[in-house]
Amino acid sequence: MNSKKPRIVVLGAGYAGMMTTKRLCQNLAPEEAEIVLVNKHNYHYQTTWLHEVAAGTINPNQVRIMISDVINPNRVRLIYDTVAKVNKEDQVVELENSELSYDYLVISLGFETNTFGIKGMEDHAFFINDIDTCREIYSHIEYQFAKYNTQENPDDDSLAILVGGGGFTGIEFVGELVEKVPELCKKYDVDRSKVRIINVEAAPSIMPGFDKDLVAYAKDSLQSRGVEFMENAKIQECTEDGFVVGDDHEKVKAGTVVWTGGVKGSSILTESGFELTKGKVTVDGDLRAPGEENIFILGDCAWVMNKEEGRPYPPTAQSAMQHADTCAANLRALLHNEPLESFVFDDKGTVASLGVTDGMGTVFSGTKLYGKSAATMKKVVDNRYLFLLGGPKLVLRKGKFRPF
Amino acid sequence: MNSKKPRIVVLGAGYAGMMTTKRLCQNLAPEEAEIVLVNKHNYHYQTTWLHEVAAGTINPNQVRIMISDVINPNRVRLIYDTVAKVNKEDQVVELENSELSYDYLVISLGFETNTFGIKGMEDHAFFINDIDTCREIYSHIEYQFAKYNTQENPDDDSLAILVGGGGFTGIEFVGELVEKVPELCKKYDVDRSKVRIINVEAAPSIMPGFDKDLVAYAKDSLQSRGVEFMENAKIQECTEDGFVVGDDHEKVKAGTVVWTGGVKGSSILTESGFELTKGKVTVDGDLRAPGEENIFILGDCAWVMNKEEGRPYPPTAQSAMQHADTCAANLRALLHNEPLESFVFDDKGTVASLGVTDGMGTVFSGTKLYGKSAATMKKVVDNRYLFLLGGPKLVLRKGKFRPF
Repeated sequence: MNSKKPRIVVLGAGYAGMMTTKRLCQNLAPEEAEIVLVNKHNYHYQTTWLHEVAAGTINPNQVRIMISDVINPNRVRLIYDTVAKVNKEDQVVELENSELSYDYLVISLGFETNTFGIKGMEDHAFFINDIDTCREIYSHIEYQFAKYNTQENPDDDSLAILVGGGGFTGIEFVGELVEKVPELCKKYDVDRSKVRIINVEAAPSIMPGFDKDLVAYAKDSLQSRGVEFMENAKIQECTEDGFVVGDDHEKVKAGTVVWTGGVKGSSILTESGFELTKGKVTVDGDLRAPGEENIFILGDCAWVMNKEEGRPYPPTAQSAMQHADTCAANLRALLHNEPLESFVFDDKGTVASLGVTDGMGTVFSGTKLYGKSAATMKKVVDNRYLFLLGGPKLVLRKGKFRPF
Repeated sequence: MNSKKPRIVVLGAGYAGMMTTKRLCQNLAPEEAEIVLVNKHNYHYQTTWLHEVAAGTINPNQVRIMISDVINPNRVRLIYDTVAKVNKEDQVVELENSELSYDYLVISLGFETNTFGIKGMEDHAFFINDIDTCREIYSHIEYQFAKYNTQENPDDDSLAILVGGGGFTGIEFVGELVEKVPELCKKYDVDRSKVRIINVEAAPSIMPGFDKDLVAYAKDSLQSRGVEFMENAKIQECTEDGFVVGDDHEKVKAGTVVWTGGVKGSSILTESGFELTKGKVTVDGDLRAPGEENIFILGDCAWVMNKEEGRPYPPTAQSAMQHADTCAANLRALLHNEPLESFVFDDKGTVASLGVTDGMGTVFSGTKLYGKSAATMKKVVDNRYLFLLGGPKLVLRKGKFRPF
């Protein structure tokens, strides 16, 4: 009977959850296990494209995919609900509207923004969290432009866009903003020179940890298009109208304030009693939670240690998808009483976009890419994911073919 | 010498000012007069399309026309500046950045919103005044949708759109809103049933003065698409979050509040010492200001009396354009020492749109039109104006050919 089949429950339909579910369908015969995928929305979205939604350079609907379009609902039970807590003792997941028992659990609930306790940040800054928050960011930016010319004494600061955090997301976001702002200026009869785009980073340089040549390239490219950088600039406080920055408490004012400076794993991890290191669970080599036989933790909820270097692999979409491969293989191994494999990260490189026609990054173990080639490679990477998820049809429907 | 030519100054490039300037160019030889057109912006816009900008159903740039695209700058001196005051004694127009003397003056500065002193209306309501205010209205509406799903406890009232005034503009505006709201609901994952569109009219019925059958048709059509009407409902006060309505002070809450209930002539008329009746100057039959030999007042700044009926003609775009014809002819007559003609209104009917595919109105002395025919006629009317202004090219560039 169906009820005898072990039940695998996947929580969260991000990169890791979607690919795990997809691989499970490929790796397991239908009679081997019941597969359940739980997600808040009925759609999956591309987290790595969210900054484009926030900058208004992409249609939000291109960023999301109906889950049932790529996961067969006859094979996988789809539950659209919000996870409240995992009860490990009883092997039950508590959802907002029901409960769900599991034999095997995959926790791939993604990230939440980490403000590191910076005063006022939770209350006054926007976060690049999901489709909802990003649509709000863009609409807020556009509203500042729409209001500008109706004021008796227009305040130029209201047009400024202040981005906290010069990491990957922050830099890609300002890269999109430099594309969008001139369009908004034209649409709302605003002089381009009145609109500041400011990126604030606490470290000595933006994109800490990235190759120095590439960072210099990115900075030049963005500065030449009007982005202002404040480096070595610790944010002391976020207020209603900007940041207080640095030791001399400089006030930087803006009508739109976005914080991109940190993430942590889903708060469900804490709710459920997992031990956290810097907001995530440091998983075993086979991606299981320490001490748990039947719980895998993937993607932005997990730190996976690079034992050679003694530090975790970077938490990227690329590694989340590789987590999924290992996790699905290990679930099959568990069902078959075979030994589990250890996660090995296959670094295909990292490319950051700097707007539509520019980018930078490394591919194929260290080859540096700049400019249009990097921008092209970025789109290849984006489309490759769609191909893995939904084949050529999905690439055609949701892929990126922006002309340049 | 040029300096001997009499100077005709036209203030304001709305329907009346644009058509007057156009006709003057046709009626007068270049050596007969210097023509100067003064306008705040370098563009003319279609006031009768503004409600579509406010509802987001038309691209703002389709609503405006660069003045220099239809008025030859080699023939007409174009000054883009804001009028501060007309000094009749010295025959000088004071502009924000300069002064300008005139021999003949045409005041066609359009309307301003009249709140009739309703408490809080100036501070809390949006007005359908010009391109700037209408872009702000639409962006504000969209922002309410964009914010909705990011709230922990979303407030349905924030989505409501409250329109004060059930006259022509108010009704056409809600007609566009019923088209746009379902689009916004889809774009922002909002349930259509959560969004109220409410029209409030103090008179016993919306569209006071209009044919009863037509009004009933409009009401049915809009109600069936989800508009709520409050008639006989005097607005006592406008607050930050809605209206206080009627004798029992009912509170009607909304995230967007727009007042369309009244207009008056430009405040420059008061500044300049003209005598006003209900916010406008009651002009002589030849459209000159009473007691002024060389000042014409047109369009929404003027009341033109219908002597047969003992009340002014309705202040519409149609009559503004006819004012222009009479004014231009009379300016030519003044220059030629010929007798001036009296304005006679040629009523071609009035059509209101109720969204893209519906409308109602009367044409050809009383024939009633409903539904698609009315919607088509409305577009014919709109395009006819473009034809008069800029010929077939302008119709092709800015005309309305929305398919249905």
